[in-house]
Amino acid sequence: MEIHLHHEEHLQSSDFLRDVVIGMSDGLTVPFALAAGLSGAVHSTSIIIIAGIAEIAAGSIAMGLGGYLAGKTEQDHYNSELRREYYEVENLRHREIEETREFFAGIGLSKELQEKATEEIARDKDKWVQFMMKHELGLDEPDPKRATKSAFNIGASYVVGGLVPLSPYFFLHKPLSALEVSVGVTLLCLFVFGWFKSRLTGINPWAGALRVMLIGAFAAAAAFGVAKIFES
Amino acid sequence: MEIHLHHEEHLQSSDFLRDVVIGMSDGLTVPFALAAGLSGAVHSTSIIIIAGIAEIAAGSIAMGLGGYLAGKTEQDHYNSELRREYYEVENLRHREIEETREFFAGIGLSKELQEKATEEIARDKDKWVQFMMKHELGLDEPDPKRATKSAFNIGASYVVGGLVPLSPYFFLHKPLSALEVSVGVTLLCLFVFGWFKSRLTGINPWAGALRVMLIGAFAAAAAFGVAKIFES
Repeated sequence: MEIHLHHEEHLQSSDFLRDVVIGMSDGLTVPFALAAGLSGAVHSTSIIIIAGIAEIAAGSIAMGLGGYLAGKTEQDHYNSELRREYYEVENLRHREIEETREFFAGIGLSKELQEKATEEIARDKDKWVQFMMKHELGLDEPDPKRATKSAFNIGASYVVGGLVPLSPYFFLHKPLSALEVSVGVTLLCLFVFGWFKSRLTGINPWAGALRVMLIGAFAAAAAFGVAKIFES
Repeated sequence: MEIHLHHEEHLQSSDFLRDVVIGMSDGLTVPFALAAGLSGAVHSTSIIIIAGIAEIAAGSIAMGLGGYLAGKTEQDHYNSELRREYYEVENLRHREIEETREFFAGIGLSKELQEKATEEIARDKDKWVQFMMKHELGLDEPDPKRATKSAFNIGASYVVGGLVPLSPYFFLHKPLSALEVSVGVTLLCLFVFGWFKSRLTGINPWAGALRVMLIGAFAAAAAFGVAKIFES
C-alpha cells in the first residue's frame, strides 16, 4: 500500500521503511489469521505449522517479487516516458510548447508570464524534458537498484512478521492454547507496529495503532469463523 | 503495489483497475502457493480446502481493510498538509514566497521571471495553496469515497483470484491430482492477468505476462519445497 511522507521527512531511509511497512503489515496479519482459522478446524499443531510455513514462504516470495516487479515496472515506465518526451520535444515542438504554456496557465500565471516562462524553459532541452517529466506527468526518476532492494526488504519483513503469530505453535501442542498466546503476542505486535507506522505517515499514532490492530483481529476472527463453517 | 498509468490513459476507471490488479495479483498467487505447499505435505484435500478458504478470508479482509486504511491515511495526510499550507501562507508568508521562488528557479526560469511569477501566484491565496500542494509537495486531492470503494474492490478481487487455484480441490480428492489441475489453470490465469496488467502499465505485455506467471510458479514451488521439509 502507498504511504506518503511529508517532504521534510523524506529521507533516504523512507523507501526502506515503506518496504518494511508493506511486508510486515501483511506478514503479521495473514499468517496470523490463517493460523487462527486452522486452530478452530484441526486438532494438531503440526498441520498449522506446515500451513503457516508454506504461507510465509509463499507470501514472502509473492510480495517480494511483486515489489521487484513494481520497481522494474516503475523504471520501465519512467524510461519509456522519458524517450517519448525527448521525441516530442524534438519532433512535436509546438505541441510541447502549448502543453508547457498550459501548465503555467493552470497554476495561475498571467498570459504575458505564461509566454515568457515557456520561452525560457524551452531553451534548454534537457531541463525542459526534466520539467515535463516531473510536473506534467508527475514522475520522479526512480533509483535503479530500488527493485532489488525492495524485493529483499519486503520479503524479509514478511518472514519476520509471519513468524510472530506462528511461534507459539512450535511450543504448545494444543491448537487452541497456542492460539491464545498467538492472539496476545500478535495483537501486541500489531499495536506497536501500527503506532510506528502511523508516526511515519503523520497520522495520530494511537488511533492508527488501534486501527491496525483491529484489522488483524477482524481478519483472524473471520478466518476462524469461515474455517469452522467449512470444517463441519 | 504501485502502478503508473500514462496521463492520457488516466481515466476514471484507473483507480478501479489498480485495485483489481492489487487484489488479484496476491489472490492468484498466495492461495495457489499455499495449496501447492500443502499438497506435498498432507493426504486429504479437505484440510487444503479449509486452509485455502481461511487464507482467502484472511487475505481478502487484510488486504481490503489495508486498502481502506491506505485510502484514509492518504486523505488524512492530504488534509493535514492542506491546513499546514494555509497556515504557512497566512503566517509565514515570506518563507512561502521564498519556496515558490525556489520552485521557479528549480525549473530553470530566469531571476526576473522567478520574481514576477511568484508575485502573480501569491495574489490568490487558494490558487497558491493548490499550487504548493501539487507542485511543492506532489500531492493530488484524493477522492473522499476512494477508501471504501478501494477496500471492496481489492477484497473482492482477492476472493475471485483465490478461488481459481483452490477450485480443483473441490472436485478431485487426491491432493497431487488436484495440484496438477490447479497448476495448469492458475498459471494460465496468471499469464492472462499479467498480460492485461502489463498493457495497463505500458510495458511489453508478453514479457510482463511471463514475469507474473513465473513469480506465481516460483512462490508455489518454494511453498511446496518448504512444506515438504517441515513435514518430515
